[in-house]
Amino acid sequence: MRSFRRLAIALGLATAAVSAHASFRRPADAVHYRRAALLVMAHHTADLGAMLRGVRPFDAARARLDARVIETMSSLPWPAFGPGTDVAHTEARRSVWTEHARFLQDARRLQEATPRLVAAAQGGSIDQLRAAFGQTVHTCKACHDSFRH
Amino acid sequence: MRSFRRLAIALGLATAAVSAHASFRRPADAVHYRRAALLVMAHHTADLGAMLRGVRPFDAARARLDARVIETMSSLPWPAFGPGTDVAHTEARRSVWTEHARFLQDARRLQEATPRLVAAAQGGSIDQLRAAFGQTVHTCKACHDSFRH
Repeated sequence: MRSFRRLAIALGLATAAVSAHASFRRPADAVHYRRAALLVMAHHTADLGAMLRGVRPFDAARARLDARVIETMSSLPWPAFGPGTDVAHTEARRSVWTEHARFLQDARRLQEATPRLVAAAQGGSIDQLRAAFGQTVHTCKACHDSFRH
Repeated sequence: MRSFRRLAIALGLATAAVSAHASFRRPADAVHYRRAALLVMAHHTADLGAMLRGVRPFDAARARLDARVIETMSSLPWPAFGPGTDVAHTEARRSVWTEHARFLQDARRLQEATPRLVAAAQGGSIDQLRAAFGQTVHTCKACHDSFRH
């Protein structure tokens, strides 16, 4: 226990400590977290898309990694859009908070698409992967159209 | 193909396009990406640590998610510390580039620890999870001591 606490302080984790009721101590922490998770997801989406469009050579192992990262990321950003996190310097529209149920429904559509993306990346058929990727990015775009500036 | 390109432009992914030789178009893109991946990893490490230290109630499903995210993140940041990415406004020390083999060895130690963390989170024994978490964060700290300001 004590050694954990020392390690946590050494790693700078203690200052990022979470309360019993929320994952983020300050609204700014939620903003940084959700932006980071979305950036990682966007990077791997762009990477996979570039391979599927022929902009870079297709690499099956890399496609599997991209799909796995996208799937892992797809559940992370949404709890960081909680009450009180509608703060300045974000690309999120007010509608994220005023139409939160619809926002979460859009997020769920992405989360339903990404396991199929992982399965397609493991399956080995580029056509299936291209179809699953198309379905995934359509859910991204639908949500951005409603909820992002 | 054409519809992908339209979607990619709509999603802002086209501007993040990657070259055939590197994952990042500009050094700043690599910096943003590695910082984002490390921030997500740090958040879930802090969250899991807080549960294991008793700062917040232990939640087994949440611990499994934290472990899975940490494991996924543990392979991502390192390729973004490539040649030419030793640019301003980062916490990385010069040693990342001047002692790159040792840096990658430290990264590998983390990547060896995180599958055990996932297994322990799924196993259900808090003592085993605590031990696996301790081993994981020791690899974080060892690398930070050598390579982070």
